[in-house]
Amino acid sequence: MTNLSLSRRTFLMASLGLPAFRMLRPHSPQALTTGQLIDRIKTQVGIPWREQTVDRLIEGTPELPVKGIACTMMATLDVVQRAAAKNLNLIITHEPTYYSHQDRTESIEQDSLYQYKHNFIQQHGMAIFHFHDHWHGRKPDGIATGMIRELGWQKNVDPENHRLFTFPQTTLARFAQNMSNKLNIQTMRVIGDAQLPVKRVMASWGNVSLLQGISYVNQADVVVVGETHEWELVEYVQDAIAAGQKKALIILGHFLSEQAGMKYCAEWLKEFIPEVPVEFIAAKEPYWRADKPVK
Amino acid sequence: MTNLSLSRRTFLMASLGLPAFRMLRPHSPQALTTGQLIDRIKTQVGIPWREQTVDRLIEGTPELPVKGIACTMMATLDVVQRAAAKNLNLIITHEPTYYSHQDRTESIEQDSLYQYKHNFIQQHGMAIFHFHDHWHGRKPDGIATGMIRELGWQKNVDPENHRLFTFPQTTLARFAQNMSNKLNIQTMRVIGDAQLPVKRVMASWGNVSLLQGISYVNQADVVVVGETHEWELVEYVQDAIAAGQKKALIILGHFLSEQAGMKYCAEWLKEFIPEVPVEFIAAKEPYWRADKPVK
Repeated sequence: MTNLSLSRRTFLMASLGLPAFRMLRPHSPQALTTGQLIDRIKTQVGIPWREQTVDRLIEGTPELPVKGIACTMMATLDVVQRAAAKNLNLIITHEPTYYSHQDRTESIEQDSLYQYKHNFIQQHGMAIFHFHDHWHGRKPDGIATGMIRELGWQKNVDPENHRLFTFPQTTLARFAQNMSNKLNIQTMRVIGDAQLPVKRVMASWGNVSLLQGISYVNQADVVVVGETHEWELVEYVQDAIAAGQKKALIILGHFLSEQAGMKYCAEWLKEFIPEVPVEFIAAKEPYWRADKPVK
Repeated sequence: MTNLSLSRRTFLMASLGLPAFRMLRPHSPQALTTGQLIDRIKTQVGIPWREQTVDRLIEGTPELPVKGIACTMMATLDVVQRAAAKNLNLIITHEPTYYSHQDRTESIEQDSLYQYKHNFIQQHGMAIFHFHDHWHGRKPDGIATGMIRELGWQKNVDPENHRLFTFPQTTLARFAQNMSNKLNIQTMRVIGDAQLPVKRVMASWGNVSLLQGISYVNQADVVVVGETHEWELVEYVQDAIAAGQKKALIILGHFLSEQAGMKYCAEWLKEFIPEVPVEFIAAKEPYWRADKPVK
């Protein structure tokens, strides 16, 4: 492809109202760099980029040419290995690479597993971009959008509050079983009367703090969360029930409570990254149950 | 009982090597106060009392006369109600009363559930003592002692390290099933190859931080914990396995990972609190599974 033909096609597509970058041929010799790609995400995400954020390049340099993108919920070593095998050298991950929300590595630099993962990433010429705060900050929240689609809850979501859902009345047992089936969760944990009538549900994908959790409990029959502390929201909901309130809590597990949001992120990235392949890399629930060991 | 007869019996028992206070008659007219009782715990626990600690009186005053003691894992409202019904007006709890490790209430003072619990406690003339740090700090750790006894692991514990256990070789699946049966856990979560050979186990009852967790992973085949973050130790163990390490993680749930330690605490308290009844108040696993709703 010459510059001339590129500029002609760019002109043509611009006249059709499509952004010029959609016409760039995949694997063009002047490949996108990681830095250019991050700039493009910053432009597209639709909210101002924050000064305080965990969203940054965890591995690799802005100058690294991108061969392909793996979009994933958590850049575990397994995901990194699978991305490398597919020649996807930029991983966009919602959760940390190095076992802490801020991806702080000072305290684990001497750890052999940290070194193994870090060296693997470097030797394979890879980069990892942590994309957490701004994907949640997008309006509506990108994780919520993907989870709502995965669960088929589009008709149930409140138009003014993407955390609030209204359902035809069911029981807590049936509602939990339904979520467990749709998200393929073996280790879901539920607190509340199995026969509790359920209509209003608040969902907090991922981790939830006590004060957020309390405000959700006050607004719904059931609060659905990914992860929380047993001595915080779990105790609060137990107490609400002991005080006679008709409440329940469903704990999905962090990973499966957000993963579909990154499946959606991969589709969103494809809309404005035509030059390189973009793939969603899925993973299963991290756990198995004592009565149902993985074969 | 006159002072004379008391002093005779005290003399008699002292001559038999028993502490004099073991002979005080239960429900004596000059009842112990909460403050005196806490002072006795401080004397008996065998380590210096810390300046920085969560162990303090959360409800009630040091002047409150103690009618009876409820020793429990977590002072949920249900436990508080059951203690009140039994006229046990001092609760000794390992976990918080008010949904945060420090039992900070500033941010929930307007919350109706906080007010309900607080008023119930005040109206029933109760006190609550948070007994976490020093029960763990006791040598050996009081929680560990109770859990080891509950699990029947006395012969397996390393004499130099009460977190480390050696077992005749088994598989991860069998080891997890055995723990789940002994502790009656429905929602145990396990990471690792079900056929992994298991001999060395490190246990961290309750919550575990990343750096503690990493050091335990490096010392054993299986690490057993109560609670941890999915983006911290869970990811680390998944990575260790992906890197070819023969490792596993068992997450018991916080509550059942420590409760037997407070059952033991009740027995310990009885040794030096003869004046009033001391009862262990048990609670069940807080959760049920989606495929096995509580009837």
